[in-house]
Amino acid sequence: MLKRFSITVDDALLSQFDKLLTNEGYDNRSEAIRDLIRNALVHQEWESDETFTIGTVVLVYDHHKHDLMKKLTDIQHESVNLIVASLHTHLDEHFCQEIIVMRGTVAEMKRVADRLISTSGVKHGQLLPSTTGKRI
Amino acid sequence: MLKRFSITVDDALLSQFDKLLTNEGYDNRSEAIRDLIRNALVHQEWESDETFTIGTVVLVYDHHKHDLMKKLTDIQHESVNLIVASLHTHLDEHFCQEIIVMRGTVAEMKRVADRLISTSGVKHGQLLPSTTGKRI
Amino acid sequence: MLKRFSITVDDALLSQFDKLLTNEGYDNRSEAIRDLIRNALVHQEWESDETFTIGTVVLVYDHHKHDLMKKLTDIQHESVNLIVASLHTHLDEHFCQEIIVMRGTVAEMKRVADRLISTSGVKHGQLLPSTTGKRI
Amino acid sequence: MLKRFSITVDDALLSQFDKLLTNEGYDNRSEAIRDLIRNALVHQEWESDETFTIGTVVLVYDHHKHDLMKKLTDIQHESVNLIVASLHTHLDEHFCQEIIVMRGTVAEMKRVADRLISTSGVKHGQLLPSTTGKRI
Repeated sequence: MLKRFSITVDDALLSQFDKLLTNEGYDNRSEAIRDLIRNALVHQEWESDETFTIGTVVLVYDHHKHDLMKKLTDIQHESVNLIVASLHTHLDEHFCQEIIVMRGTVAEMKRVADRLISTSGVKHGQLLPSTTGKRI
Repeated sequence: MLKRFSITVDDALLSQFDKLLTNEGYDNRSEAIRDLIRNALVHQEWESDETFTIGTVVLVYDHHKHDLMKKLTDIQHESVNLIVASLHTHLDEHFCQEIIVMRGTVAEMKRVADRLISTSGVKHGQLLPSTTGKRI
Repeated sequence: MLKRFSITVDDALLSQFDKLLTNEGYDNRSEAIRDLIRNALVHQEWESDETFTIGTVVLVYDHHKHDLMKKLTDIQHESVNLIVASLHTHLDEHFCQEIIVMRGTVAEMKRVADRLISTSGVKHGQLLPSTTGKRI
Repeated sequence: MLKRFSITVDDALLSQFDKLLTNEGYDNRSEAIRDLIRNALVHQEWESDETFTIGTVVLVYDHHKHDLMKKLTDIQHESVNLIVASLHTHLDEHFCQEIIVMRGTVAEMKRVADRLISTSGVKHGQLLPSTTGKRI
């Protein structure tokens, strides 16, 4: 159910905000403000180790590197309850990017992400905090 | 080709670093230091609008929302040269997560990411800076 | 001049937001939303090298280290037009923290901050993006 | 006491890193790598609410605003054990920046920072994680 309420903003600030909205492709202020609110909530969710939510690991690595794909697959299999899906893309003859979607507690996802990212041969890795959409 | 060189670090700092490595699953200092270096380089790459590289957009949205999937697909088709692949996962009866891998300049990827994230009905969206692996 | 306008937010999202507000000490939604808007604008200001604004460098270093204070002072004097003020605090027998307030373009402030932070003996350094308050 | 050890880095990565170092004003690789290590440790320290360390709050506000300075001072006095020092700079006829150095646990500093930043009339506020220098 949608609730409507009014807020007050100084006109100079509002005109700056309206410009930002247009640049970023928003149609209206409500949608943009809802996104700012949701970002703040997702940020807060990830501050607690116990939150059950969604996270995505992005890895870039050289698939020619001996045994690397096997090691990464092994780590994923040991945490099979956390792993939802993965997407593999070929960047060039050497490099691929693997994106792994996880669902679990923040602590569990951080632990698996650390193991994947620290594997020798992984060139770059990051854990992206996301959300189940439920609370927001 | 690998190059070997030596660095000096205060022993108190080194022992803290070794603990961090173990926590995060690294086998050796070289690998961990290489990852710190690569992170600094990817961060720098993304400071310039002209860098040609890889980025990933993660969107969470309610797939029941009228026309939303069509709008998101339309935006992707208009930027078809940027989009490499996408992965769709179902989070529950309502929400899905869509991950879109892009390859292009930082400026182009930011523009498309802004349009996707600002679409009404998208609950949460983020652009994740990545790398082609080539320069690092 | 204050402007009033109304926005619509789903009630589940709104109740989460109200909890967050209370935790962070906000009295009302307007103030919290204005702060979210201002953060987005400051973030955007700092994406352009030419923006004339305010930044703060925080350095932690060992003041016993030979010549370090002199070097840091020299760098500040070479950029005297940028430096507004600085605050020195003693953390313990060895370490001090120095906070340097700068006013200038983003590019100039980043250059001076890089020089200060990279000086040998500086244990930790960061550049904090701030704002003149004018545009927001 | 300094310890020396050697690491191996691919030459392409190393040459990128050497360019970055030069841009940022570093004299040598050791110093740059030590800074990357320290940043990782400070980041980790701040992930635990119990860490006793240093933090800095930066506030921008309009000093004409009725009672604002009094409110901010009151909050600081209630947390007098946390507050080490503060620095006030005048940005123009209206705005000032106040920088407040705190020493305490991460949880305590976050709580006080939230209260200061959420005070009505504060245009922009941030908490900057720092370090006592001891562990790093």
